[in-house]
Amino acid sequence: MAVAQFIPSSSSLTKRTTLYSSQLSQYLSSTHKPLLTLRRTNYAKICCSVTSNEVQAPVARQSNDPIKKPECFGVFCLTYDLKAEEETSSWKKMINVSVSGAAGMIANHLLFKLASGEVFGPDQPIALKLLGSERSIQALEGVAMELEDSLFPLLREVSIGIDPYEVFQDAEWALLIGAKPRGPGMERAGLLDINGQIFAEQGKALNAVASRNVKVIVVGNPCNTNALICLKNAPDIPAKNFHALTRLDENRAKCQLALKAGVFYDKVSNMTIWGNHSTTQVPDFLNANINGFQVKEVIRDTKWLEEEFTEKVQKRGGVLIQKWGRSSAASTAVSVVDAIRSLVTPTPEGDWFSTGVYTNGNPYGIAEDIVFSMPCRSKGDGDYELVKDVLMDDYLQSRIKKSEDELLAEKRCVAHLTGEGIAVCDLPGDTMLPGEM
Amino acid sequence: MAVAQFIPSSSSLTKRTTLYSSQLSQYLSSTHKPLLTLRRTNYAKICCSVTSNEVQAPVARQSNDPIKKPECFGVFCLTYDLKAEEETSSWKKMINVSVSGAAGMIANHLLFKLASGEVFGPDQPIALKLLGSERSIQALEGVAMELEDSLFPLLREVSIGIDPYEVFQDAEWALLIGAKPRGPGMERAGLLDINGQIFAEQGKALNAVASRNVKVIVVGNPCNTNALICLKNAPDIPAKNFHALTRLDENRAKCQLALKAGVFYDKVSNMTIWGNHSTTQVPDFLNANINGFQVKEVIRDTKWLEEEFTEKVQKRGGVLIQKWGRSSAASTAVSVVDAIRSLVTPTPEGDWFSTGVYTNGNPYGIAEDIVFSMPCRSKGDGDYELVKDVLMDDYLQSRIKKSEDELLAEKRCVAHLTGEGIAVCDLPGDTMLPGEM
Repeated sequence: MAVAQFIPSSSSLTKRTTLYSSQLSQYLSSTHKPLLTLRRTNYAKICCSVTSNEVQAPVARQSNDPIKKPECFGVFCLTYDLKAEEETSSWKKMINVSVSGAAGMIANHLLFKLASGEVFGPDQPIALKLLGSERSIQALEGVAMELEDSLFPLLREVSIGIDPYEVFQDAEWALLIGAKPRGPGMERAGLLDINGQIFAEQGKALNAVASRNVKVIVVGNPCNTNALICLKNAPDIPAKNFHALTRLDENRAKCQLALKAGVFYDKVSNMTIWGNHSTTQVPDFLNANINGFQVKEVIRDTKWLEEEFTEKVQKRGGVLIQKWGRSSAASTAVSVVDAIRSLVTPTPEGDWFSTGVYTNGNPYGIAEDIVFSMPCRSKGDGDYELVKDVLMDDYLQSRIKKSEDELLAEKRCVAHLTGEGIAVCDLPGDTMLPGEM
Repeated sequence: MAVAQFIPSSSSLTKRTTLYSSQLSQYLSSTHKPLLTLRRTNYAKICCSVTSNEVQAPVARQSNDPIKKPECFGVFCLTYDLKAEEETSSWKKMINVSVSGAAGMIANHLLFKLASGEVFGPDQPIALKLLGSERSIQALEGVAMELEDSLFPLLREVSIGIDPYEVFQDAEWALLIGAKPRGPGMERAGLLDINGQIFAEQGKALNAVASRNVKVIVVGNPCNTNALICLKNAPDIPAKNFHALTRLDENRAKCQLALKAGVFYDKVSNMTIWGNHSTTQVPDFLNANINGFQVKEVIRDTKWLEEEFTEKVQKRGGVLIQKWGRSSAASTAVSVVDAIRSLVTPTPEGDWFSTGVYTNGNPYGIAEDIVFSMPCRSKGDGDYELVKDVLMDDYLQSRIKKSEDELLAEKRCVAHLTGEGIAVCDLPGDTMLPGEM
């Protein structure tokens, strides 16, 4: 494999042999875009090292900083007692759901699903706390106005803000969608650093102000390592509570198997996405079932399974961009709903779902201390357990290994953001999924 | 009121004193935009007359034209017997829902709600038939792909097409969202003609191929007169089955009253939007209730009710555009869901909802033979009846009259599309709601 060292050509930069990763990210994102665009190849590696005394990870707020409440919006500023009224007295206690990237397209679909009762049920009142940026605060107001105009009976509070320390207050669910998109010529390493900063900050904020049992679903890419950074910065919240979204991949994989087998998608079960939400992900056809039979018994075309299936799943986003001109916001939002529902409703007997979770005593021999997508089951209490009896063969194992290697490399690359000292970045050039620019 | 005659200055056009309205619309939409932009004022009137022998209304297909099925998509091309399987054997018979403008943003929200079971219930399998244009067919494929990837169990068929005679086949619901947006400088008269052509064609198609009891909800603007054109072109379908969407206006009106009264929006009931979905619409605070009391007993600020309330409802869309940078697709989709649900679930005792329906024996003294928004109740069978006991006062009556006059003028303007001969257009300049460009 050809390796191109990342050597900045600007004279002021060539004088340094190491770069702060925050400087690197600035460099990547602004000053020298054209240079990087020219140098980018499929085989490029970006190497950088950051020494521990140079680390500039986000600093947690001091505990004596006053924490304000986020701004309530319009009709949602009212206070009332749900238990005092006949229609609402049997409702559950309100839950607080914080959503970052709330002015974006995925959230625009997701928020209305959350508010309608579709996700948490018809007796679950909900408070939505929307996190945006200074640039998007007007748009957030627009979203809140549309939520008002929708008259959802279960939606009792909407607040908006740009400070995670305000917006994540008492959050029982944190759906972290917001992330910087990858700019032209930006490699995964640059994206990791830029977004890592965001998720480190948000982890600290969750640690400071969220419910002690908050469930966190990271959607913003690169979501596995963002989730790792987030949980490492939230030491008072169980690491088990952090998820990286691989549910859209699972759904797409089910659909592709159904198409190939000529059955409806509800006949496909036990679909695992292993590993990273990247092109190293492993949609697992060894353990998946179609109509209760092993996939290989139903789809005899091994060449298709081994060579085309994974690509079909992974290229789906890119094909959609081509056809539709925008990324798959609607189906991503549906998959977030699926991910939440899988945790709040019991998993059907014999089936499982995939989610990227913290590896801490897994039975598959996957490296510990990363966020890896694996097969899980839930009793519907918000918690989950790993599925123990899954098949492994050399082919599956070797592919899982590749995704594991990538996640370990990503982890080394963000060591300065996880409190593990010296960041060393040595990543394959580009494993972003198509359609996620 | 100042009246500016519409006098084209191009020499080739000044020779004519009458214009075909289809020519007018071409004229408005292409050749001479700058002229109209300059001339457009709030008080402008556009006058045109079309003699009956010049009428070029769409011609219905000959009955011997072969009618093809629209193209099914991907996994939805499968055939199966729902009754043969345990999980689905108790489901209702599948319903066919046709949606026009299916590649647009409102549909992008609505389709996923329809497919999820949120609208018609968890035992109602659904076939979605998506109508787009030649330009949007790729995007439609993208929508269908996202629907596939969402794995909705109830969604059993998705087909896409650009021919309403194919896509409306056996439709039990037709949600007509697609319409040409108003271009810069285009007046309501131009919009009426351009979109009227579309709805005349779609009415003919519904008449030819849809279920004999299809329910039609027109969302594309100007929706009242579009609905009138549509029903006039579908003489074999009960005129009562056609609706023009005024539900978003109703929802917004409820929200504004709630805000003013300092109560939650679920406390506002009996909200009527009278008339046209335009700035002549009448959000009725005389009959609406807050916590079961008349609005005037709760909100003592008569000046606000008479002078600000209606404007607040109507300007909502414009404010949203300013803040959010796009029109209110999400809340419009929610209001379409509300409109359908109001017809398929019994109306709560003592309450009602608003919908634009065909006037044919109404108790309010409103002119017959137009589509007018009025208070309705439903037994949940898809049908509705008008509410009889509503209060009227001179203020309300005079405002209703104004909207009625506008709709009668719009009707004269599209006479060539309703089969009533000579179109004479004499409309107030611009009564489009802000934010609906």
